Amino acid sequence: MIKVGIVGGTGYTGVELLRLLVQHPQVKLMAITSRKEAGMPVADMYPSLRGRIDLAFSDPASAPLADCDLVFFATPHGVAMAQARELLGAGVRIIDLAADFRLKDTAEFERWYKMPHGCPDLLAEAVYGLPEVNREAIRNARLIGLPGCYPTSVQLGWLPVLEPAAVAAAGGELIDREMLIADCKSGVSGAGRKAEVHTLLAEASDNFKAYGVSGHRHAPEIAQGLAAIAGKPVKLQFTPHLVPMIRGIHSTLYARVTKAGRAIDFQALYEKRFENEPFVDVMPAGSTPETRSVRASNMVRIAVHRPQDSELLVVLVVEDNLVKGASGQGVQVMNLMFGLPEDTGLTQLPVLP
Amino acid sequence: MIKVGIVGGTGYTGVELLRLLVQHPQVKLMAITSRKEAGMPVADMYPSLRGRIDLAFSDPASAPLADCDLVFFATPHGVAMAQARELLGAGVRIIDLAADFRLKDTAEFERWYKMPHGCPDLLAEAVYGLPEVNREAIRNARLIGLPGCYPTSVQLGWLPVLEPAAVAAAGGELIDREMLIADCKSGVSGAGRKAEVHTLLAEASDNFKAYGVSGHRHAPEIAQGLAAIAGKPVKLQFTPHLVPMIRGIHSTLYARVTKAGRAIDFQALYEKRFENEPFVDVMPAGSTPETRSVRASNMVRIAVHRPQDSELLVVLVVEDNLVKGASGQGVQVMNLMFGLPEDTGLTQLPVLP
Amino acid sequence: MIKVGIVGGTGYTGVELLRLLVQHPQVKLMAITSRKEAGMPVADMYPSLRGRIDLAFSDPASAPLADCDLVFFATPHGVAMAQARELLGAGVRIIDLAADFRLKDTAEFERWYKMPHGCPDLLAEAVYGLPEVNREAIRNARLIGLPGCYPTSVQLGWLPVLEPAAVAAAGGELIDREMLIADCKSGVSGAGRKAEVHTLLAEASDNFKAYGVSGHRHAPEIAQGLAAIAGKPVKLQFTPHLVPMIRGIHSTLYARVTKAGRAIDFQALYEKRFENEPFVDVMPAGSTPETRSVRASNMVRIAVHRPQDSELLVVLVVEDNLVKGASGQGVQVMNLMFGLPEDTGLTQLPVLP
Amino acid sequence: MIKVGIVGGTGYTGVELLRLLVQHPQVKLMAITSRKEAGMPVADMYPSLRGRIDLAFSDPASAPLADCDLVFFATPHGVAMAQARELLGAGVRIIDLAADFRLKDTAEFERWYKMPHGCPDLLAEAVYGLPEVNREAIRNARLIGLPGCYPTSVQLGWLPVLEPAAVAAAGGELIDREMLIADCKSGVSGAGRKAEVHTLLAEASDNFKAYGVSGHRHAPEIAQGLAAIAGKPVKLQFTPHLVPMIRGIHSTLYARVTKAGRAIDFQALYEKRFENEPFVDVMPAGSTPETRSVRASNMVRIAVHRPQDSELLVVLVVEDNLVKGASGQGVQVMNLMFGLPEDTGLTQLPVLP
Repeated sequence: MIKVGIVGGTGYTGVELLRLLVQHPQVKLMAITSRKEAGMPVADMYPSLRGRIDLAFSDPASAPLADCDLVFFATPHGVAMAQARELLGAGVRIIDLAADFRLKDTAEFERWYKMPHGCPDLLAEAVYGLPEVNREAIRNARLIGLPGCYPTSVQLGWLPVLEPAAVAAAGGELIDREMLIADCKSGVSGAGRKAEVHTLLAEASDNFKAYGVSGHRHAPEIAQGLAAIAGKPVKLQFTPHLVPMIRGIHSTLYARVTKAGRAIDFQALYEKRFENEPFVDVMPAGSTPETRSVRASNMVRIAVHRPQDSELLVVLVVEDNLVKGASGQGVQVMNLMFGLPEDTGLTQLPVLP
Repeated sequence: MIKVGIVGGTGYTGVELLRLLVQHPQVKLMAITSRKEAGMPVADMYPSLRGRIDLAFSDPASAPLADCDLVFFATPHGVAMAQARELLGAGVRIIDLAADFRLKDTAEFERWYKMPHGCPDLLAEAVYGLPEVNREAIRNARLIGLPGCYPTSVQLGWLPVLEPAAVAAAGGELIDREMLIADCKSGVSGAGRKAEVHTLLAEASDNFKAYGVSGHRHAPEIAQGLAAIAGKPVKLQFTPHLVPMIRGIHSTLYARVTKAGRAIDFQALYEKRFENEPFVDVMPAGSTPETRSVRASNMVRIAVHRPQDSELLVVLVVEDNLVKGASGQGVQVMNLMFGLPEDTGLTQLPVLP
Repeated sequence: MIKVGIVGGTGYTGVELLRLLVQHPQVKLMAITSRKEAGMPVADMYPSLRGRIDLAFSDPASAPLADCDLVFFATPHGVAMAQARELLGAGVRIIDLAADFRLKDTAEFERWYKMPHGCPDLLAEAVYGLPEVNREAIRNARLIGLPGCYPTSVQLGWLPVLEPAAVAAAGGELIDREMLIADCKSGVSGAGRKAEVHTLLAEASDNFKAYGVSGHRHAPEIAQGLAAIAGKPVKLQFTPHLVPMIRGIHSTLYARVTKAGRAIDFQALYEKRFENEPFVDVMPAGSTPETRSVRASNMVRIAVHRPQDSELLVVLVVEDNLVKGASGQGVQVMNLMFGLPEDTGLTQLPVLP
Repeated sequence: MIKVGIVGGTGYTGVELLRLLVQHPQVKLMAITSRKEAGMPVADMYPSLRGRIDLAFSDPASAPLADCDLVFFATPHGVAMAQARELLGAGVRIIDLAADFRLKDTAEFERWYKMPHGCPDLLAEAVYGLPEVNREAIRNARLIGLPGCYPTSVQLGWLPVLEPAAVAAAGGELIDREMLIADCKSGVSGAGRKAEVHTLLAEASDNFKAYGVSGHRHAPEIAQGLAAIAGKPVKLQFTPHLVPMIRGIHSTLYARVTKAGRAIDFQALYEKRFENEPFVDVMPAGSTPETRSVRASNMVRIAVHRPQDSELLVVLVVEDNLVKGASGQGVQVMNLMFGLPEDTGLTQLPVLP
């Protein structure tokens, strides 16, 4: 059994981790910390867990985190980097669901998260936890920076056309890396369980809007990830929108197909690339995946379009932002780190309707 | 492995059965029939099942239903009663999710469902599939009429105060059986996956209304069930309402407490009655359960209130209408019929948020 | 033109007042105060008002409230009672949308609102602003305590059967005043525009729950109002529920019909009672009114049921909680106070779908 | 008073026309036809209109349409073109809310609407009813093809950068007409009031998806309109998505800025272009308009972005698909045709929240 601790278990990624870990056959939950709710039984805050978890939130200071094999940080940005060194020193491995170990460039980190980075050396060591890209590195990592919800969907959507192998096979770039457009739509749980006016039901339901058009924290993360995949820089327009629903991200990706790309059977390329991936499903040609088709599951579904009379490649990607976009990906990464089958504890079917 | 067939797998209770049975460790799905969709892979209609089920819908005429150990009917009313005799004759056990085997009085059945009953003898044999009431009879039944969604929640809500044992212990009736009020609220999936105007999102969202105030098919079923529990007739006002959400039923039950009842600790009574029930959770005193606390799970949560200055007992009951209110209860009943632990394949945690 | 000021214009009742008053042909808006947002153009906070209102929020201290003919308080409880005396002294009339001038019993006020009442003498003078009950008193009032959203719907729903005239005509009480049950359901805007977790879209949508079962501030207000109507005390069970929608209240009212009541044609009684009311619509027998049928309008729709085999009178009432339940009623009361036709500025049709 | 008839008043654009026309000070409603509902009072189908409209639906054959000054067709595609000639012959002017008189190329019409065009000569005469583009032609038109909901928002969003005057002033094209991307999101009412499974609340809520990615009827209409504005052909990728809300369209428009365009102050260009338009509001720089900011009103709000490090112009446009996207635009056009101030009967404020 893997001994697991969770720091910061009161938010949405925290409770989603709990939902998945309670059902995981190889995990023993050791502690869930919350400074604010220390002492409160977890099931009092989340009645959905009544009868299935006996733990109470414990104070971070006294929680037996150093006895764990693995600690998840489901905390605000900045917490993991303050505690990582000590835990690693105690032989504990770490998966951070926040942004502390995502951006390799500390200047970029500081620009977007408005705080200095506390441990650049650990950042250099940290592995970006996207299994479809970094599977081998993840297996041996001590410290994981788990991708953001939007970045997971966008990187998976463009992975097959940016990888050097595909470019080499085609004899040149398949799409124009200089003008990538990611028009993304997210359910409201992506904003977290914070008391804010703009995500109240009376504000956000029966409504639709864009936000962060001129700049969003996930843009540099996506650009970094795509550049790492391609081995070359990319230029990205990322436009997030808020959808009046709880869970789900739908990314609509546009890229101009190059001359070399025009000869490519993109459907076949995507199917081939993901055929062995347990959590990426390439839909049949012509499909339009729905977010609910992955609701509460770790699956990503992708559809590839080349609309008539167009030089565009249009890729549609759906994921559950709290599962493959956060906690489910965390469990997938944990399985890799501890040598378990990658889908252990992650076989729940999507909930539809 | 239990060999299972499903007749009518295209509606919401059908796809919910599939979600649960695909994850059930002791079930082998043999056939899913749909006259209209025969030949279509199930996963084409329900992409949430892609990669997890290989079956196509088969024509009812040619499906190997007689080779099954158990057949679920997830069909419109009237289908099961036309096919039950032949299947039972072939040694197949039956769980009907529709209303054919619920109402014991055929005149009542004909009044509410506008069709003659085709097999009164089988109706007499059929067991009403509410495990908390009929557990032993279910184990040995060949033919189950599964309770409706509203009736499950209402009967469980009043079970502890109507049972003769409780009445005997209190030295008299605890509540006035002559004026029971069930004010119930259901998500829209309760209306099924039928193309109708009144359940369109543009009609039913951002809206709330009652319906069937003067009479609803579930009223006689509830009254029959409560009378069976109490051993005496009851008088019931049942008012269903439509909630702009997908899943969930919330029943708010009102009953006048009698003199004998005033001495009762209802909280303790309910906790005691359900302490060994795997799928009924009595919440702490003062709670107000939310439908999402049981979303996509087979749990029912109940809270008991005696508001100040009132002679009323107010009971709040939440369930997922597609799980404990339909398909999950069907699996629970199947487990009983085949000697499995009652919660086999039903341990999924509620999805929250 | 009536010179109108609004204290506290940033909440939902404030912006709804603005929507109605900007379109009112006899109103000149003088000031809208907000301590927190002083200086911000109103249309910056509410883009729906862009181009239609030039005012900025002003500081309460410097706003020309004393120059107004009428000031609305759309503030938290406790604000109006602190400022009322001075304004009244300056000849300004007041309509308070909060609770300061609703409950006539200051002990009850203090019990539910957790603050002492600052001006019992003004409370004694204040008129309860429900036009269907207090039309004449409202015309001449200086100070109005506007009813709460739930209380408006519940009182209108039982008005015809509790009024002494109806009781006298029937030769006795029509319903049992000792056991009134109001099972009420409200959209989330009723909780106001406050940053709170439980009303986030990710918490409150696709969900349904009761709250305040054991006690809610509106219960004593309703009981006081019904007792005033009946001339005798009543006993009330009030159970509010939260509906995943923005606007709308649906009250389902249950009362036991007395012997005298059994002879009554309730449909005719209700139609007669409200035939001259501009904002109360009694639906045809058998109707089930929807909240969207009054969305964004000042109408209340009522349906009266006597379900078969039942001794119960079931009354269904729908209103828009922000219009007839708050700001629209405020404008209706203002029209009465200033001698205008009662529906001036209130003829907008409901928005459906 | 303008004598107005409506053919096909039972759908969403029909009831929205009724909502607006009942409140219009210069309109007398003569007839509302529905073959299916003939004889039924309009207010029985739409209780929101109770007390405000006395008409019943009349049979199209007997309705006094020839006595009207103007007839709106709120019908399925194909109806208006069958009846237009006779009505025009009787001196009646026509506004068609369906697609019969939108596409000037009959081959395109037949390709997308799967029916031959019945009156190409009238099509040639018909004016495309987008006031911001064709105001003068509309004033004198006998026959109007009203724009579709998506096309209204997309054309208004690119109008200022495609018009020849702007191109001339800049000394060249401002954007690349060869790669326009319109990523559009619509509420479900855009699908009409038809009984269909995919728009049921239980299917479409808590869900998001694209549709028609490879081809949608509105794409040729938009391309035709943009080409007419530019005086040159354009190449368009149009991707519609379904949002779980009732009303509202949000169009996110992407275009590559040319060298000539880089010198342009787009914010100023848009503000200048629309400064005299009564129903187009250019928001301040940096804004992200919400659909609810125009809910139930005829306003369009536009925001213009030039994100950093990008060669893209990103334009955000919101409208209410049933008002400016359909019935409100119809009333605006009617006002122009009959010499009334353009905003007559259209001054309702958006409903927020």
